Amino acid sequence: MDAAENGAKSGNREPIVRRAAVLGTGLIGGSVGAVLRGLGVDVAGYDHDRHRLERAVQLGVVDSAAASLAAAVAGRQIAFVAVPVGATPELAAAALDADPAIVVTDVGSVKGAVVEAVELARPDAATRFVGGHPMAGSEQDGLDGSHADLFSGASWVLTPTERTDAKAFALVRAVVAACGAEAIALSPRDHDLFVSMVSHVPQLAASTLMDSALGVSAQHSTLLRLAAGGFRDMTRVAAGNPAIWPDILTANREAVLIALDRYLAALGDVRRMVVDGDRVGLLTMLQRARQGRRALPVGAATVDELVELHVPVPDRPGVLAEITTLAGRWAVNVYDLEIAHSIEGDQGVMTLVVAAGDAADAFESGLRDLGYTVSHGKYE
Amino acid sequence: MDAAENGAKSGNREPIVRRAAVLGTGLIGGSVGAVLRGLGVDVAGYDHDRHRLERAVQLGVVDSAAASLAAAVAGRQIAFVAVPVGATPELAAAALDADPAIVVTDVGSVKGAVVEAVELARPDAATRFVGGHPMAGSEQDGLDGSHADLFSGASWVLTPTERTDAKAFALVRAVVAACGAEAIALSPRDHDLFVSMVSHVPQLAASTLMDSALGVSAQHSTLLRLAAGGFRDMTRVAAGNPAIWPDILTANREAVLIALDRYLAALGDVRRMVVDGDRVGLLTMLQRARQGRRALPVGAATVDELVELHVPVPDRPGVLAEITTLAGRWAVNVYDLEIAHSIEGDQGVMTLVVAAGDAADAFESGLRDLGYTVSHGKYE
Repeated sequence: MDAAENGAKSGNREPIVRRAAVLGTGLIGGSVGAVLRGLGVDVAGYDHDRHRLERAVQLGVVDSAAASLAAAVAGRQIAFVAVPVGATPELAAAALDADPAIVVTDVGSVKGAVVEAVELARPDAATRFVGGHPMAGSEQDGLDGSHADLFSGASWVLTPTERTDAKAFALVRAVVAACGAEAIALSPRDHDLFVSMVSHVPQLAASTLMDSALGVSAQHSTLLRLAAGGFRDMTRVAAGNPAIWPDILTANREAVLIALDRYLAALGDVRRMVVDGDRVGLLTMLQRARQGRRALPVGAATVDELVELHVPVPDRPGVLAEITTLAGRWAVNVYDLEIAHSIEGDQGVMTLVVAAGDAADAFESGLRDLGYTVSHGKYE
Repeated sequence: MDAAENGAKSGNREPIVRRAAVLGTGLIGGSVGAVLRGLGVDVAGYDHDRHRLERAVQLGVVDSAAASLAAAVAGRQIAFVAVPVGATPELAAAALDADPAIVVTDVGSVKGAVVEAVELARPDAATRFVGGHPMAGSEQDGLDGSHADLFSGASWVLTPTERTDAKAFALVRAVVAACGAEAIALSPRDHDLFVSMVSHVPQLAASTLMDSALGVSAQHSTLLRLAAGGFRDMTRVAAGNPAIWPDILTANREAVLIALDRYLAALGDVRRMVVDGDRVGLLTMLQRARQGRRALPVGAATVDELVELHVPVPDRPGVLAEITTLAGRWAVNVYDLEIAHSIEGDQGVMTLVVAAGDAADAFESGLRDLGYTVSHGKYE
């Protein structure tokens, strides 16, 4: 599903947003700017590095270079904070301050620490903040690698919490979908654990493997000449920019240790099997891994049929996070999400458009288990 | 340097061999057959799987299908044993038995156990056996993936020992070079340690990483949807055929445990740095790994100048292995190797053509340290 089609299916009569801000014009910020500009959105850019900001204007990934963060944000509907994890909470808070209506999201690789810091810094305004993390691009490529289809078919995690305003979430979700990505809602904690397993620990595993292969004294150049395609594949990420990692590993320490200990324990099992000459055990593990690797989802899921679910919801905090992260846990892709409030404002109906199938059925059962009533119809 | 050019440079007036045998017609055997046939060599094939052998004839990677191993080998100058590691020693011994003059080599991923088994089984005939391991192709691709340029630019390790006959080694080295590969001589022990670090442990690291990422209960499909390019790169080898690994890991247990323990210790260091929030330590490791990864040699080295070294050698066992594995340890690529014996047969001159440079200088110093006299001239 491309961005235009997605927009058409979600039935919008007008562009999702008219004016956006990108705070931090690196690869991700630049690519967000590029895709939004392509959709007719006016994009203001801001970066503390003036040189990079001017380059972003030259490259045409933002419309204008703002003189300050406040100037970039004022009068915009959505702001993307696209700076390293360590600097994200401060900029997100400043963006929330700069416009009383703006919705703010970020693109950082760690969500628990970031979301918590923003909610702590701005307990009230943080209802307009939605943590985000597009699973695309590598921070090492820089602004010049920006392109409008960077997110096409990629997963983009959003991490609503009990405080998140449903309208703010729906707006971010719609913009993410318009970028061509598949939004997946997860709790910040689940996100951090999952990325520690598919990104942070793999990075450590690759760099450590490369590092271990060095330092075999004078002969190491011969050793490395023997490195064929498999070793090259495995260590490719070790060639990336190391500067981003101390921040990420510190901010996500707890989840990284869980995933790393899991990996170390599994390697310990393998070591025992090698010592014991346990061929069956080794083969079983290798076969399980092979099956898992072959089943890795490739790009966007192909969708035959969409289902529209209607869920009456009380207008209380946490409902949005509860429902969307339940969908995320079941890997149900939410193609569209709308919340219609009753006039009294204490009750509403959430409409979710999801891919039909077993996962959607399980999600629906999960909703009923939580006490929700679900009615559904075929999405046209 | 392509095969034809290589042949020209080594100054051969006739094809290196006229008749060869390939025992085991999988990917490697088939590709050896294909490249040799392209050089005008008549190639007999043998495989216990008659269906696969017939397919090899159909594909044109061998000239003829032999009814037995003995029939394939008789009257041939060189035989390549290209079967799984576990079956290699028996077939190599049978090939040595089948023709009193034939030179036999293999292509297995483990050398210590294989070479030792052949030398134990045939103490005398094993002078005509040279262990080999082309660092190209993956066993999972099968016969239909065979192609004549599989080895082009690849490293191909040869493992001469004290017993190896110099003429047998020179023949295998020349055929390997004619296949387009760069021959590197290493002791069986060094080979096994080096491949454990760049192939066997990386395979275990990748499969274990993939396996660890599974089994996070019902949510694992969401977790895997977050897997981006880095995770895919790292786990690619986990999709390969697991059946070859129990053999390899058992045969190379000692070296695999050395490399695995090195990796586990390094991961333990990284874990401590994460616990301690040691940003400097993490960054230092990641930077070292990045530098190592970026310095990985890519394909064949480009060679500006070749040097011809003349080394008078006594005609005693071990000289060949000593000199060629010294070159291997210094990562000196031996482009050509000839041994001229004196009429009396107790003294000879070994001529090595190597790439000029620091490594060649170090190799030459190493030779002098071992008591050899070296004279050299520019290779034309």
